[in-house]
Amino acid sequence: MKSLLLVGTGLIGGSFALAAKAAGIFDRVVGMDRDAAALAEAQRLGIVDEAARHPRTGFDAACIAVPLGGIAASVRECIDAAPALFDVGSVKRPVIDALAPLPAHFVPCHPIAGSERHGPGAARADLFDGQRVVLTPTAATDADAVAAVRGYWEAVGGQVEFDTAAGHDDRYALLSHLPHLVAFAFMDVVAAAGSPPGAGSGFRDFTRIAAGDVDVWHDILHANAPAVRRHLDRLIEHLRAFGEAAEEGGAPLRQRIAAARRRKLAVDGDR
Amino acid sequence: MKSLLLVGTGLIGGSFALAAKAAGIFDRVVGMDRDAAALAEAQRLGIVDEAARHPRTGFDAACIAVPLGGIAASVRECIDAAPALFDVGSVKRPVIDALAPLPAHFVPCHPIAGSERHGPGAARADLFDGQRVVLTPTAATDADAVAAVRGYWEAVGGQVEFDTAAGHDDRYALLSHLPHLVAFAFMDVVAAAGSPPGAGSGFRDFTRIAAGDVDVWHDILHANAPAVRRHLDRLIEHLRAFGEAAEEGGAPLRQRIAAARRRKLAVDGDR
Repeated sequence: MKSLLLVGTGLIGGSFALAAKAAGIFDRVVGMDRDAAALAEAQRLGIVDEAARHPRTGFDAACIAVPLGGIAASVRECIDAAPALFDVGSVKRPVIDALAPLPAHFVPCHPIAGSERHGPGAARADLFDGQRVVLTPTAATDADAVAAVRGYWEAVGGQVEFDTAAGHDDRYALLSHLPHLVAFAFMDVVAAAGSPPGAGSGFRDFTRIAAGDVDVWHDILHANAPAVRRHLDRLIEHLRAFGEAAEEGGAPLRQRIAAARRRKLAVDGDR
Repeated sequence: MKSLLLVGTGLIGGSFALAAKAAGIFDRVVGMDRDAAALAEAQRLGIVDEAARHPRTGFDAACIAVPLGGIAASVRECIDAAPALFDVGSVKRPVIDALAPLPAHFVPCHPIAGSERHGPGAARADLFDGQRVVLTPTAATDADAVAAVRGYWEAVGGQVEFDTAAGHDDRYALLSHLPHLVAFAFMDVVAAAGSPPGAGSGFRDFTRIAAGDVDVWHDILHANAPAVRRHLDRLIEHLRAFGEAAEEGGAPLRQRIAAARRRKLAVDGDR
């Protein structure tokens, strides 16, 4: 009889619980959520078997799936709940720094999976299937806890990889956080232009991530602001250069577009 | 026996020919394409019934579906082919200016449909189903030609609307051309950072349009560069402001994200 404490029953936490039960790695999930309605929905949907108000001890693992700003406090609150704790936050350094010294049985994790949908109702047992999960343990992290958590992610279909927290945060500032900031800012520009009708499918895909959860993205963009702004400054330089190339036209513009296209196809092939 | 001259047998032209034949508005399609391999493929795929090297007269309509930079020359070449000619270019002012005085039986059109795929092999009879088609005739455009061309687009499932060429070009600089420029430039920034692996589905959707056809996008970005750069300057202002808000965090950042999210959902509901 293996049991999981799930703190935060939204898209990511809910999907982990569903997938972990489907894979047979936990028999029982006890859920906590500061949002009582979400917790009740998670229970109704079979994501959690029992709702709790406070953490207990004796679990096999604890998954901390709250928005970034609440992770460190949740880890502290649940520190005695299980021999292995892990989070699912999109930025790793601020969590690790806030917890210093890092508890040895806490394994920082970031599954690269998500959706612009959120809440327990959006949870899916196949969310992590074939997706990357980045683990950023430190030299002080307990090897047994790392092995256990790695096993959980692999059991739910994830492809586990390891990185430093700083390396992870810089990489995802570029690959995820900045695209979100750009999509959000783009919607401002559209609104400032009077929200003209006529958007096509390209626009809809380009701005899909602008429908992300407000609390989640507030915490991510704020926590990783230095790295995001560093990449943003570079993006602005490239945007200006591309705008000038558009004005000029001819071979330089064509080469820029061809290079971008090649890189896009390479990234897609590299998934 | 109604016949269409199709100049340019790629995604848009090929899809129009397939859809128009399926709808029964043309019985025969004669195709021209400066790319002999594309023309042969279009014939093999049944998009065109006959391949031609030069335009003839006696068609019921001519669809000019070549990249933007070639439209004015193609219209001039085919001016006597049919009583109604129309193009499918994504920017309208430069075509109209290049043709001045505008032939009365030429109806400038822009179907808001596309894909990052291209060529005759990407053509689909349902490409225009439920999609906007913007027509930008001038006061001098022949009413019968406008009515005929409007009817063709409606027959293939399009939702026809009218705009001025300048209004259209400004609107699509914002809703389509600038997003493409941003997606292209973003791939530059990723490459400059060493193309780190780990992109998720959000990144893939955000940059989907960076896989667009090089010639098509060269011509569009160059032809509409003044409007694109005007919107780009505003985007850069909003990006900087968003970057500062990310650094600050708190209610102002939360409000910005919430507003962007609301606008995104409104645009999607407005399609």
